[in-house]
Amino acid sequence: MSNKDQTSKLWGGRFSEATDQFVQRFTASVNFDQRMAPQDIQGSLAHAAMLHGIGVLNDQELQDIESGLATILDEVNAGTFAWSVALEDVHMNIEARLTELIGVAGKKLHTGRSRNDQVATDIRLYLRAAIDTISLEIDRLQQGIIDLAETQADTLMPGFTHLQTAQPVVFGHHLLAWNEMLQRDYGRLQDCRSRLNQSPLGAAALAGTTYPIDREQTAAALGFDKPTENSLDSVSDRDFAIEFCSFAALLLTHMSRISEELVLWTSAQFNFIELPDRFCTGSSIMPQKKNPDVPELVRGKVGRVNGHLVSLLTLMKSQPLAYNKDNQEDKEPLFDTIDTVLDCVRAFADMIPAIIPQKDVMREAALRGFSTATDLADYLVRGGLPFRDAHEVVGMAVGHGVDTGLDLAEMTLETLQGFCPDIREDVFEVLTLEGSVAARDHLGGTAPAQVRAAAERAREKVASRSR
Amino acid sequence: MSNKDQTSKLWGGRFSEATDQFVQRFTASVNFDQRMAPQDIQGSLAHAAMLHGIGVLNDQELQDIESGLATILDEVNAGTFAWSVALEDVHMNIEARLTELIGVAGKKLHTGRSRNDQVATDIRLYLRAAIDTISLEIDRLQQGIIDLAETQADTLMPGFTHLQTAQPVVFGHHLLAWNEMLQRDYGRLQDCRSRLNQSPLGAAALAGTTYPIDREQTAAALGFDKPTENSLDSVSDRDFAIEFCSFAALLLTHMSRISEELVLWTSAQFNFIELPDRFCTGSSIMPQKKNPDVPELVRGKVGRVNGHLVSLLTLMKSQPLAYNKDNQEDKEPLFDTIDTVLDCVRAFADMIPAIIPQKDVMREAALRGFSTATDLADYLVRGGLPFRDAHEVVGMAVGHGVDTGLDLAEMTLETLQGFCPDIREDVFEVLTLEGSVAARDHLGGTAPAQVRAAAERAREKVASRSR
Amino acid sequence: MSNKDQTSKLWGGRFSEATDQFVQRFTASVNFDQRMAPQDIQGSLAHAAMLHGIGVLNDQELQDIESGLATILDEVNAGTFAWSVALEDVHMNIEARLTELIGVAGKKLHTGRSRNDQVATDIRLYLRAAIDTISLEIDRLQQGIIDLAETQADTLMPGFTHLQTAQPVVFGHHLLAWNEMLQRDYGRLQDCRSRLNQSPLGAAALAGTTYPIDREQTAAALGFDKPTENSLDSVSDRDFAIEFCSFAALLLTHMSRISEELVLWTSAQFNFIELPDRFCTGSSIMPQKKNPDVPELVRGKVGRVNGHLVSLLTLMKSQPLAYNKDNQEDKEPLFDTIDTVLDCVRAFADMIPAIIPQKDVMREAALRGFSTATDLADYLVRGGLPFRDAHEVVGMAVGHGVDTGLDLAEMTLETLQGFCPDIREDVFEVLTLEGSVAARDHLGGTAPAQVRAAAERAREKVASRSR
Amino acid sequence: MSNKDQTSKLWGGRFSEATDQFVQRFTASVNFDQRMAPQDIQGSLAHAAMLHGIGVLNDQELQDIESGLATILDEVNAGTFAWSVALEDVHMNIEARLTELIGVAGKKLHTGRSRNDQVATDIRLYLRAAIDTISLEIDRLQQGIIDLAETQADTLMPGFTHLQTAQPVVFGHHLLAWNEMLQRDYGRLQDCRSRLNQSPLGAAALAGTTYPIDREQTAAALGFDKPTENSLDSVSDRDFAIEFCSFAALLLTHMSRISEELVLWTSAQFNFIELPDRFCTGSSIMPQKKNPDVPELVRGKVGRVNGHLVSLLTLMKSQPLAYNKDNQEDKEPLFDTIDTVLDCVRAFADMIPAIIPQKDVMREAALRGFSTATDLADYLVRGGLPFRDAHEVVGMAVGHGVDTGLDLAEMTLETLQGFCPDIREDVFEVLTLEGSVAARDHLGGTAPAQVRAAAERAREKVASRSR
Repeated sequence: MSNKDQTSKLWGGRFSEATDQFVQRFTASVNFDQRMAPQDIQGSLAHAAMLHGIGVLNDQELQDIESGLATILDEVNAGTFAWSVALEDVHMNIEARLTELIGVAGKKLHTGRSRNDQVATDIRLYLRAAIDTISLEIDRLQQGIIDLAETQADTLMPGFTHLQTAQPVVFGHHLLAWNEMLQRDYGRLQDCRSRLNQSPLGAAALAGTTYPIDREQTAAALGFDKPTENSLDSVSDRDFAIEFCSFAALLLTHMSRISEELVLWTSAQFNFIELPDRFCTGSSIMPQKKNPDVPELVRGKVGRVNGHLVSLLTLMKSQPLAYNKDNQEDKEPLFDTIDTVLDCVRAFADMIPAIIPQKDVMREAALRGFSTATDLADYLVRGGLPFRDAHEVVGMAVGHGVDTGLDLAEMTLETLQGFCPDIREDVFEVLTLEGSVAARDHLGGTAPAQVRAAAERAREKVASRSR
Repeated sequence: MSNKDQTSKLWGGRFSEATDQFVQRFTASVNFDQRMAPQDIQGSLAHAAMLHGIGVLNDQELQDIESGLATILDEVNAGTFAWSVALEDVHMNIEARLTELIGVAGKKLHTGRSRNDQVATDIRLYLRAAIDTISLEIDRLQQGIIDLAETQADTLMPGFTHLQTAQPVVFGHHLLAWNEMLQRDYGRLQDCRSRLNQSPLGAAALAGTTYPIDREQTAAALGFDKPTENSLDSVSDRDFAIEFCSFAALLLTHMSRISEELVLWTSAQFNFIELPDRFCTGSSIMPQKKNPDVPELVRGKVGRVNGHLVSLLTLMKSQPLAYNKDNQEDKEPLFDTIDTVLDCVRAFADMIPAIIPQKDVMREAALRGFSTATDLADYLVRGGLPFRDAHEVVGMAVGHGVDTGLDLAEMTLETLQGFCPDIREDVFEVLTLEGSVAARDHLGGTAPAQVRAAAERAREKVASRSR
Repeated sequence: MSNKDQTSKLWGGRFSEATDQFVQRFTASVNFDQRMAPQDIQGSLAHAAMLHGIGVLNDQELQDIESGLATILDEVNAGTFAWSVALEDVHMNIEARLTELIGVAGKKLHTGRSRNDQVATDIRLYLRAAIDTISLEIDRLQQGIIDLAETQADTLMPGFTHLQTAQPVVFGHHLLAWNEMLQRDYGRLQDCRSRLNQSPLGAAALAGTTYPIDREQTAAALGFDKPTENSLDSVSDRDFAIEFCSFAALLLTHMSRISEELVLWTSAQFNFIELPDRFCTGSSIMPQKKNPDVPELVRGKVGRVNGHLVSLLTLMKSQPLAYNKDNQEDKEPLFDTIDTVLDCVRAFADMIPAIIPQKDVMREAALRGFSTATDLADYLVRGGLPFRDAHEVVGMAVGHGVDTGLDLAEMTLETLQGFCPDIREDVFEVLTLEGSVAARDHLGGTAPAQVRAAAERAREKVASRSR
Repeated sequence: MSNKDQTSKLWGGRFSEATDQFVQRFTASVNFDQRMAPQDIQGSLAHAAMLHGIGVLNDQELQDIESGLATILDEVNAGTFAWSVALEDVHMNIEARLTELIGVAGKKLHTGRSRNDQVATDIRLYLRAAIDTISLEIDRLQQGIIDLAETQADTLMPGFTHLQTAQPVVFGHHLLAWNEMLQRDYGRLQDCRSRLNQSPLGAAALAGTTYPIDREQTAAALGFDKPTENSLDSVSDRDFAIEFCSFAALLLTHMSRISEELVLWTSAQFNFIELPDRFCTGSSIMPQKKNPDVPELVRGKVGRVNGHLVSLLTLMKSQPLAYNKDNQEDKEPLFDTIDTVLDCVRAFADMIPAIIPQKDVMREAALRGFSTATDLADYLVRGGLPFRDAHEVVGMAVGHGVDTGLDLAEMTLETLQGFCPDIREDVFEVLTLEGSVAARDHLGGTAPAQVRAAAERAREKVASRSR
């Protein structure tokens, strides 16, 4: 990062002293906004073509600008572009370099626009591209989960509420619960994309411009659905960035829940799954350790994303219109949120299909904890007892089980009849794990057949996404 | 709130000691979830009708339940229902009362469901109704803004960036910037509604139920688009509540920005608008004070809503599936967010149409601060100067103005020509406020004609909402 | 809450129309600030005595005010005080009632003060009292933890990192880790108390007052350390409330970590502890469930408190001096934070001493997972191997153990010597749980003797608190 | 950053496959924790000296380690150290390089410690140094404010509440309100420093170590007040980082309030102050613009800091003991908070003394808005009217003023007597600005003499800080 160039600012006419050196660094954004250089160039090309269309630029000027910007893009991609803090931001750096390369035509590029609409355009282009990349990775993650769910449609495990054994479920059903969360997150992401995909270019500083610009043309050239409706709003709001961070906070919240389960399940106490060594790391001191780093780290990263959401909300709180310098602070939280989401989704998309279920351990766990107590209550209801009374009866049987160390299926028929004389030999069928899950045979239930059908529907939804 | 009834809990069978009195109060939710009583009853009616359809309830039982629930709804509405903390929550209170009223059929109502899917259903019904009410109030607020914008399409005022005078705009244009924010907020609200409108009923505790329930029937009866796909997910996620709070945080952020402007504009220094006395209050000590309480309070309430969003995100962070008691904490933040949004939107919908613009003050302010400097630069560009050079020239003219206390329009032609000899007599036309705004005559620009057309389009969007 | 009284406002002189009914409700605070009535009266008594001292009130007037306020306090305590929304807040309600009771002297009470310094005083008094109550409950909680720690100084359990078995520890050591967190939280609470304990009374509206008030007198009468230094600051800042919420967020974060462990430990998979039935509740559908509601709920309540912290920070962001109406929003988050902290600390102070450790299960768990691998590495180091090489050797032995299902202590000497020929028969001593914990015999280590000494020091710290 | 080195991990013994390349990058922290290299080396030196003291290292080994670490520190400072992502973090990078440099002694350095206590030590050392730097900058900022306050002790300006003219104050009084906020922030910072200044070194992985380490020695060598009390707590809590971020959030909140005022005051509407050009920047399109970038940016940065606080609170929520990988996420928010605080305080310490008050404008503003209405009420009270009645009378006079456009001091005696016959000629003295401020002559009031005395006390407090 060059700091030495004290070239005159592009706005210096009315100023009587140079910017303070510390202030120059403090207020510059080029260190972090340079990542939008491709979008800035993309936007400038569309703007230049439009200026040419309305006669502000002649053929030669347009050609010069196009070739100059192409050179700059090459320099940026090659890492040879000399970014300057004195030139503040990505926009001024590129414009100054353009003028250096092509002369006077470079000074005409900013006709009819301002950095205010320029940066608003750049961010939207950048975020839109990021959304499309993230969408593909979510696809991949969902596919991995759905495939695994299908192969685990018969794997029995205890379902938990309050982390206490509740009822038997199949592992595939649990996996599809994860998929449902992601399915909604995906929907939120597309809603966000759809809402942000309007072109602020032409809003200029805040009020529009005196040139007869064609905003539909630049909007179309940049792939936006249409121009934005109001120039003041266009340069001053960042709600699309906040909406994206809201999406991200929910996605990471969901991933933190999945992570928590993965961490629990890899503990010696649960031991429901194993993660391949390549997703784990060891300890500098304890030679036996194999730590589930990836889910732990993803779990932690929800903090980062929640924090960025709060950052942006705080940032925008009670700002009067239109653009204020505060808004420069919108980029780092947004960029880091994008990076974090991408990394976390990629990590899970790689790792989750590689989960190794410990089926015997899961099954054994499901046999403990009176997991079929509800099935017994339902059995009694089918025999004519009101549900609330059946619940009471089974509660007492469980109390007996706690005292004697016997699960319901391990009690004798006689014992069970001591709690309710209507119980018959066929009760033991409903007390098996297989009987229990198979009986929950309705849309959304854990019966293996339902799980397979649900996986099929889920797969179709992912496949049918058109982008 | 009755605290005395130590009636046996509805789940007490397996317990050997009574709940601790403090714990009973600490863990009870009836104090705040009783506001969902109408939704709880609505859900129970749909569930009962379905149980009847599949033969679990006979005609008489259904009739008893329906009349019992009707009685209870009357009691709730009349304020005579005796809520009991010992019965924990709205669900158990109503079920216990139902059994008291109709006997054994009451004990059958809970067949095939759990409080877990019951509460998930209740919250969604409650929130959906709230969204519909809020939507109507946003309509009203937007209509008020759009109407005012149309009448203020010619009112000149300074547009600001960095709170420094930037360029002249018309007040109607500024008002329509507010409308655009609200328009997007409205869109987010409808997306949230659409995503939450699925029926979790039938998920039971976490795994579905052994009864041959008809989830499509209850979903349809309750106005849901369809049943949810996965029982574990249905009882454990609250992302719809978080999505609603994300909407609310953005809406209130927007309203805090509007509030900030209203507060600024009613200050003696700005004096751009007046608020009717009925929206203001006074001081206990300073007899002259007339304070803009409503916008100040709305500005403050963004804190409340951001806080609730953080509450819910923190709450859900790293919770393993399925339902955990933590989730009881979802209701108060959600309810208070609903109340806050409704109050704030109502307050603005009442107040904003009553704003009294001080047109002379606004116009006078627009004349200060070199607000037409960009127009001068554009004038020079039309004369052939590259924009960046024109900017430099005008910067120097402004520097002269700062020193001499003269605005650009107050300088002589000779003085202006001292900065650029190409300037001619017609320059004074572009330096008028009217010329400046009229020249920004493109989609989204501040020209009065554009503002009127934009108001028209905005009005149609609000009018075309189908609910 | 009376809403009917349209008595003239106490500040209505300059207003030409009545406050809008909705606005009146929207801007009123009496619904939530009435809980400060005792503090408001306390502050008024001190203020009146001071006014009497400087000759503003005569003997009779002071006496009237004192007896009038005593009557009002009785009415408030008895629940018979008629709060009026039209009178906005606790201050105006009490002043109006006072004038009703004692006539003209009531109208003199507000001499030399404003609601701005009045409310600042009330909140500080209220919060200070709350801090003192909370401090006592934290004492009780810490004492309970320390006592339990001492009795569990020999109870072996696995220590975890990454929720993977790491090294054996004693349960008492783990409990004292909790105590250390609380010890620091307590310190933060006292720092907060010390910083807030200054009297803003006398700041009046914002600039002080023209009466020759004696701020030292009122400060002393109210138990404040001294008067605040600056009137503008006194009425406009709420950093003490934010500092309290920061304390609370950390305390609840700590309690959420303790809760997480309690929930894990009561799961069937860990089964390290049991909670008495009186701290648990059941399920409406699953008769066998006994849920650890209290720790779950406490875990959830960290969301609420974090949210309130964000609320207040957002509220204060970029407010210009001095008092703004926004600040009315400071009370509900603060009050709810106080209530939440008190409830959670009380719940834990009751529950934690009642924890029933399942010592056999804990010990058994510590035997699994190669928990003494570090001890083996240390053994090799003592034999001369550099630590990093010893780590490598033990890592390979563990790899063998994973493949064969044998823990280190279960391998033969020969097998172990296959990894490092220097291993001798005495290795099996260091591989025992008792040997492992006893060897960590330094300040802060898990050796039972150290734990007992640490419990003793911790107890003394709590005992030595002077309040 | 070297990525190519696939050197074996330092914990690889028990692993059967290499870490996934993406996972390696995803889980590595060296990119951001390398800034703690000096502290890591400082900690290692203290640890090595202690190991030598207890006989674990011989003289030669200690000497080798010391010279090796000195070499590494030189490499780090010179920017020639070859950081490797494959070696995960700053700790492993340095240890690996040390062994490369000095051979087997390097492998002994990690005896009796773990990365868990190592990183806990490094962060505390790093943060402590940052706190000391920040403290000096706060000193400088406070001194600048206090000096300016003293020179502005007679400068009249309107004091505001609700951004409405309230009462006259002197500018120096307003500046000292800022100083009071910073004074409390400084206190919070020192409390945080004092609480964190304990040495976790010796906690090892989580349970302490089997070596006879001397924790007092390392604590003293590193300037810590004492060793921490509990090993589990030492490696798992990060409350000191959260406490620092809480301090920072309050500091930046205060600075956002100051910023808001600076932005308001530099607007054309207020025009109370001017900022030198060197603290401002211009516009790319509007040649006349001079924007108050520094206060705007500082105002925005409160979002960043609030976000980091939420990040860390979310991160720690419900983590079971002891160290989890999640905690790696503690560093970036903490580091960025430190950087942000330092930059913002520096920027203000430079800029605030350079503020140029526009005294005439301020005075003129104070004359508007009936700023002396309270003085008139107090005058009436001194004449015998109860305050509440005096308030009513003045309210009506103000109403008359609003209608006629006359301020109170501009009304004739006759007019004023129309509102209250007791008013005499001397009323006009109390209605002057000078009379108004001079009358508020008590501790904390705005009388110039009080302001000068307050500035003196404030200066002494800053001067008396011992560090």
